Amino acid sequence: MSLAMVFVVVCGLLAVAYGVWASISVLSADAGTQRMREIADAIQEGARAYLNRQYTTIGGVGVVIAILIWLLLGWKVAVGFLIGAILSGAAGYIGMNVAVRANVRTAHACSTSLDDGLRVAFKSGAVTGMLVAGLALLAAGGYYAILLGMDASGRDIVEPLVALGFGASLISIFARLGGGIFTKGADVGADLVGKIEAGIPEDDPRNPATIADNVGDNVGDCAGMAADLFETYAVTVVATMVLASIFFAGTAMAANMMMYPLTIGGACILGSIAGTFFVRLGRDQNIMKALYKGFIASAVISLILLIPVTQWIVGFGTTLDVRGVPVTGLDLYFCGLIGLAITGAMVWITEYYTGTDFRPVRSVAKASQTGHATNIIQGLAMSLESTALPALVIAAGIVATFLLGGLFGIAIAVTTMLALAGMVVALDSFGPVTDNAGGIAEMADLDESVRDTTDTLDAVGNTTKAVTKGYAIASAGLGALVLFTAYTADLAHFAEAGQITVAEGSVDFSLSNPYVVVGLLLGGLLPYLFGALSMTAVGRASGSVVEEVRRQFREVSGIMEGTTRPDYHRCVDMLTKAAIKEMVVPSLLPVLSPIVLFVIIWAIAGMGAGLSAVGAMLLGVITTGLFVAISMTAGGGAWDNAKKYIEDGNYGGKGSEAHKAAVTGDTVGDPYKDTAGPAVNPMIKITNVVALLLLAALAV
Amino acid sequence: MSLAMVFVVVCGLLAVAYGVWASISVLSADAGTQRMREIADAIQEGARAYLNRQYTTIGGVGVVIAILIWLLLGWKVAVGFLIGAILSGAAGYIGMNVAVRANVRTAHACSTSLDDGLRVAFKSGAVTGMLVAGLALLAAGGYYAILLGMDASGRDIVEPLVALGFGASLISIFARLGGGIFTKGADVGADLVGKIEAGIPEDDPRNPATIADNVGDNVGDCAGMAADLFETYAVTVVATMVLASIFFAGTAMAANMMMYPLTIGGACILGSIAGTFFVRLGRDQNIMKALYKGFIASAVISLILLIPVTQWIVGFGTTLDVRGVPVTGLDLYFCGLIGLAITGAMVWITEYYTGTDFRPVRSVAKASQTGHATNIIQGLAMSLESTALPALVIAAGIVATFLLGGLFGIAIAVTTMLALAGMVVALDSFGPVTDNAGGIAEMADLDESVRDTTDTLDAVGNTTKAVTKGYAIASAGLGALVLFTAYTADLAHFAEAGQITVAEGSVDFSLSNPYVVVGLLLGGLLPYLFGALSMTAVGRASGSVVEEVRRQFREVSGIMEGTTRPDYHRCVDMLTKAAIKEMVVPSLLPVLSPIVLFVIIWAIAGMGAGLSAVGAMLLGVITTGLFVAISMTAGGGAWDNAKKYIEDGNYGGKGSEAHKAAVTGDTVGDPYKDTAGPAVNPMIKITNVVALLLLAALAV
Repeated sequence: MSLAMVFVVVCGLLAVAYGVWASISVLSADAGTQRMREIADAIQEGARAYLNRQYTTIGGVGVVIAILIWLLLGWKVAVGFLIGAILSGAAGYIGMNVAVRANVRTAHACSTSLDDGLRVAFKSGAVTGMLVAGLALLAAGGYYAILLGMDASGRDIVEPLVALGFGASLISIFARLGGGIFTKGADVGADLVGKIEAGIPEDDPRNPATIADNVGDNVGDCAGMAADLFETYAVTVVATMVLASIFFAGTAMAANMMMYPLTIGGACILGSIAGTFFVRLGRDQNIMKALYKGFIASAVISLILLIPVTQWIVGFGTTLDVRGVPVTGLDLYFCGLIGLAITGAMVWITEYYTGTDFRPVRSVAKASQTGHATNIIQGLAMSLESTALPALVIAAGIVATFLLGGLFGIAIAVTTMLALAGMVVALDSFGPVTDNAGGIAEMADLDESVRDTTDTLDAVGNTTKAVTKGYAIASAGLGALVLFTAYTADLAHFAEAGQITVAEGSVDFSLSNPYVVVGLLLGGLLPYLFGALSMTAVGRASGSVVEEVRRQFREVSGIMEGTTRPDYHRCVDMLTKAAIKEMVVPSLLPVLSPIVLFVIIWAIAGMGAGLSAVGAMLLGVITTGLFVAISMTAGGGAWDNAKKYIEDGNYGGKGSEAHKAAVTGDTVGDPYKDTAGPAVNPMIKITNVVALLLLAALAV
Repeated sequence: MSLAMVFVVVCGLLAVAYGVWASISVLSADAGTQRMREIADAIQEGARAYLNRQYTTIGGVGVVIAILIWLLLGWKVAVGFLIGAILSGAAGYIGMNVAVRANVRTAHACSTSLDDGLRVAFKSGAVTGMLVAGLALLAAGGYYAILLGMDASGRDIVEPLVALGFGASLISIFARLGGGIFTKGADVGADLVGKIEAGIPEDDPRNPATIADNVGDNVGDCAGMAADLFETYAVTVVATMVLASIFFAGTAMAANMMMYPLTIGGACILGSIAGTFFVRLGRDQNIMKALYKGFIASAVISLILLIPVTQWIVGFGTTLDVRGVPVTGLDLYFCGLIGLAITGAMVWITEYYTGTDFRPVRSVAKASQTGHATNIIQGLAMSLESTALPALVIAAGIVATFLLGGLFGIAIAVTTMLALAGMVVALDSFGPVTDNAGGIAEMADLDESVRDTTDTLDAVGNTTKAVTKGYAIASAGLGALVLFTAYTADLAHFAEAGQITVAEGSVDFSLSNPYVVVGLLLGGLLPYLFGALSMTAVGRASGSVVEEVRRQFREVSGIMEGTTRPDYHRCVDMLTKAAIKEMVVPSLLPVLSPIVLFVIIWAIAGMGAGLSAVGAMLLGVITTGLFVAISMTAGGGAWDNAKKYIEDGNYGGKGSEAHKAAVTGDTVGDPYKDTAGPAVNPMIKITNVVALLLLAALAV
C-alpha cells in the first residue's frame, strides 16, 4: 500500500473514530424525565421499524441487481455494488440511530441553556456527517487498494468502482424517496387535520399522527440525507478516479492522479473534524454564526491542507496533458478553490431565497394577505426564479474550471466541493434532531422556555436544511457532468478497443443528431415524471393519514380532552407500508430508462444511434433535473419560512387569514422540498451510472 | 410569378375573403337589448384602449429594432421584419375587433338556441383563424415572390424571411405576455375579492373588476393567441423554406422545395375553410363532437389535397438527397401525415389531462376534499405528469420523420401540423367569445337559461383552449428544432464561405464540449426565469386590482346593494398600465440572452466557442421550455376543470369546502395556463430566430 493510500485510510478511520467519540459523548448526556424517555422510545421504535422494513425491501431489490451484475460483469463488480449499497445504508442507519437518541438529550439540554442544546444537537449531526464522509472515503479508497492488491488494472478497477457508486446511488434513491414519502405524508397529514381542522398546535400529543411526524424527521431528513450525500460523495470520487484512469492512461502520473481525489477527500476530512471544534456560540448567542464559523473554519483549514497534498501527489509545477490542454498542479489546486467558492455561493443564494430577511420570503408572506392562491402563485414564482443564480454560478464554474484544468478541472472542483460533505451533513442533521427535540418538549409538557429554545434552534435548522439541499443539488449536477464525461470517454475507449462495434461516425453527440435531441427530451422528462410520481405518492400517503386521524378523533372518545392517548402506532405503521410501496416504481425509473431507450433506438437505428441517445439522455436529465430540484427545494423553503415570518407577528401573525394562507403554502412546499426535490439528486446520478454499466455490459 | 406561387397567393386571399364574409355574417346578427349593447360597448372600449396602448408601446420597441436591423443587415431585411410585425399585430387586432362584437351577438343568439349560439361564436372564431393562416401565408409567400421578382437569391432571400419571422415573434411575445398579464391580473383579482371575499358570483355587475375580466378574455385569449399562432405559422414556414434553400442549394429542385411548405399551407387553408362547414350540432347536441367533426374534416380534406400538391411540386417518385439520405416525395407526404398524427395525439392527450371525464382532473377534485394544500399538491403532480406523453409523442415523431425524410422530414411534419392553424385558432377563439357572452348575459340580467346555454358553450371553450395550447406548444417545440437545424446549417454555410472566421474545430455542438453544456444550462434557465417574471407580474397586477376593488366596496356606498354602479373604467385603466409596464423586461429576455451569451463566451474562448454555446442555448430553451409550457398549460386546465367538476355537484358541489379549495387551485392555474405557459412558445422561437439573425449580422 502506497503512503498516499495509508494517508487516505487513516483519514477515513479518523472520521469514523470521531463519529464513535461523538456518539459516546452524545449518549452520555442526560435523557431527561420518564415521560420524555417514553416519547423518545416511541419515536425510536417507529424509526427503527420503518428503516428495518425499508432496508429489507431494498435488500431484496439489491440482491437481484447484485446477481445480475455478477452474471453480466463478474464478481468484483458485484462486490463493489454490495460495498456501496451496504455502506450507504449503514451511514444512514447509524446516523438515524444516534439522532433518535440525541433528540431527547437535546430537549433536556435545552432546559439548561441554548449553548448546551446546540452542543448536543450539533455533535449528533457531526456523527452522521463524519460517518458519511469517512465511510465513503474508506469504501472508494479501500476497495481501490484491495483491487490494486489483487493486481487488477485498467477496466478491472474502473468497473468495480463504478458499481460501488451504483450501489450507493440505489440505496440512496430508495432512502430519499421512501423517507421523503414517510416524513411528508406524516407532516402534511398531521398539519391538515391537526393545525387546520382541529386547531391544535404542531406536535400536540392529542394528534395521532404526531409520533409519525417525528419519526419522519429521522428517517427522511436524517437517514435519507445521509444516504444521499454518501452517494454523491462516493459517485463523484469514483467518477473523478475513472476520468483520471482514462485521461492519464499509460502516463507516469496515472496512479498518482487516481489517488488525487482520494487524498483531497482525506485532507478535507481533517479540515472538517477540526472545523467542528469551531462551532461555538459567541456572546451574541447567534446560532447561525456559530455554525458558519465551523463551516468557514473547515473550508479554510482544508484549503491550507490541500497545498501540501497537491504538492505531494501532483506537484504544483508538474504539467499534465488533459486531452491536449496543458494543466499544472497549481491549476488543479485553483479548480479546488473554485469548487469551494461555488459551495459558498450556493450557500449564500439558498439563504437569500429561503431566509426571512430577504425579498423572496417576504414577498410570499406579503402575498398571503390576499389569500391562499396568491401565496401559492408568489411561491411558485419564487421557486422558478430561484434557479437563475445557481444556474449562472454553475455555468461560470464550468467555464472557469475548464479553462484552468480542462475536463479534469471540473472533476477536481466537484470532488473538493463534496470533500466537505462531512461538515455540511453535520450542519444538516442538526435540523431534524432539534425539530424532534421540540416535538418531545411539547409532548412531554416541558416548560415553555424549553420549547422556545428548541424553536430557536429549529428555525436555524430549517435554513441549514435548505442550504444543504442547494449544495447537494449543485454538486450532484456538476458530479453528473463528470459522469457524462466518463461515459463519452468510456465509449470512445471501448469503440477504439473494438469491444463495442459501432458503425463509423454513428456515435455522434452533436446536437444536430436527431437521436441526441430525442435523448435530451426523454432525459429531460425523467425529473418531471419522477416529481409527478413522488408528489402523488405523498398526496396519497397524507390523504390516508388524514382519514385515519379523523377516524380516531371520531371513534375514540377522550382524545381531544387529553384523557385517552391516541393510537400513534397505527399512523406509523400505515405510513411505513405506504412509503415502502410507493418508493419502488419511481426508484426504478432512472434505472430502467437508459436501458429501455438504448434498446429501442438500437433496434431502430443501430448501436451508435442508441448509445448517442443514451448519452444525450444523461445530459437531458441533468439539465431539467437541476432546475426541477433547485426550484422545488428553494421554493419549499421559501413557503416554510414565509409562514414562520408571519408567525413572528408580521401581517397579522398566528391565526390571521394571512397565516392560514401561509400554512397552505408551507404544506404545498413540504413534498416539494423534502420528497420530490431532493430525490432528484440520486436520480440524476443513477441514470448516469447505469449508462456507464450498460457500456461495460455491452463491452464484455 | 410561377403557377405554384399563384396557387399560394390565391389560397391566402381566399382565407382573407372567408374572414371578411364571416365577419359580415357575424356582424349582421342581432346585438340584443340596450343594456347588452352598453356592456358590450364598455368591453369593446376597454379592449380597444388596451390594444392601442399595447401596440403603441410595441411599436416603439419595433421601430428601434427595425432601424438596428436596417443598419446591420440592410433594408430588405428590415422590411421583412416590419411585414411580420405589422401583419402579426393586424391578425390579433382584427380578430379581437370581431370577438368584441361577436360576444354580445352570441349572448343574444343563445337566447334562441344552443345551435344559434354555437354558430355565431364559432364563426367569429373562424374569422380570426382564417386571418391568421391567410395573412401568415400571404406574408411569407408574398414577400418571397417580391424578393424573387427583385432578382434576389440565396442569402438575400433567406435573411429577409427570417426577419419576417422575427417581427412576428416579437409582436407575439408582447401580445401574449401583455394580454396574459392583463387577463389574469383581472381574473385573479376579480375572483379573489368577488368570489372569495364578497361571496358574489362570477361576472356579477357589482364587481368593479368584471368589465376588466371580460376585456382580458379578448386581449389575452383572442388577440394574444392569434399573434402567437401567426408567429408559429410564419416562423415554421420560413424555417422550412430556409432549410430547403440550404439543403437543396444548387440542385434543380431548389426552387420547388422552397415552394413546397407554402403550397402545403395553401392546400390546408382550403381544407380548413371546407372544414368550417362541417361544424354542425348533431341531434345529440354535443358541442365538442360538432367541433371535432369540423377539425377532422379539415384534416382529412387537407390530406387529400396534399396528394396532388405533393405530386405537382415534388413528385411522389422524385428522389431528393437530404444530407446524404435519399428521400422521395412519398416519404415527405408521409411526414406530413405524421405531423397531423402528432396533432391528433396532442389533442387527445390534452383532453385527457384537462377533461372532467378522466383520472387527472378527477384526482385533483378528489384531493380538494382534504383542503387547499392537497388540491395544489395534486394539481402540481398532474402538471408534472402531463409532460410525459407529449414528450414521448414528440420524440417518436422526431425519430419517425427523420427516418423517412431526414432533417427535412421533421420540417415538413411541423409545417403540415401548423398548416391547420386556421381551423385550430377558430376552435380556440370560440372560447373567449362564449366566455364573454356568459359575462354579458349575467351582467345584463338575462334569463337563467341563457346563462346556462353560454355556460355549456364556455365549458367546451375551456377544453378547446387547453387543446390549442397543447398543439401550439408541441408545434413550437418541433418548429424550434427546425430553426436549430437552420442555425447549424447556416453556421456551416458561413464558415465554409469564409464569412464567419472560426478556428478549426472550434465550432463543436458535441455534448462533451463544456461550452455546449453551459449553453444548454443557460438556455434551460430562460423558460424558468421568464415564468418567474410573468407569474410575479400577474401577482402584482392582481394584487393591485384586489386593493382597488376593496377600496371601491369600502368607499363607494351602494355598490353591494346594486344601487350604484362601480367604476369599471378604473380597473381597466390600472391593468392596462400594469400589463404594458410588466411585459417589456420579460419580452426582451429571449432577445438579449443569445447575444449576451455569445459576446461573453466569444470574449473568453473565441468565436467558435461562442457560437457553439449559442447553439446549445437554443436547444436548452426548447428542452426545458417544452416541459415548463406543457406542465403549466395542462396543469392550469386541470385545476380549472376540477373546479367545474365540483361545481357539477361532486364532492359537495358549489359552496362546499372542497369547492373553496378548488377555487384556490383554479386561481393558481390562471397565470400558469394563460400567462406564463403560453408565452413560453414565442419565447422559444425568438431565442432561435435572434440566433439566426446574429449569424447573419456576424457574416456581413
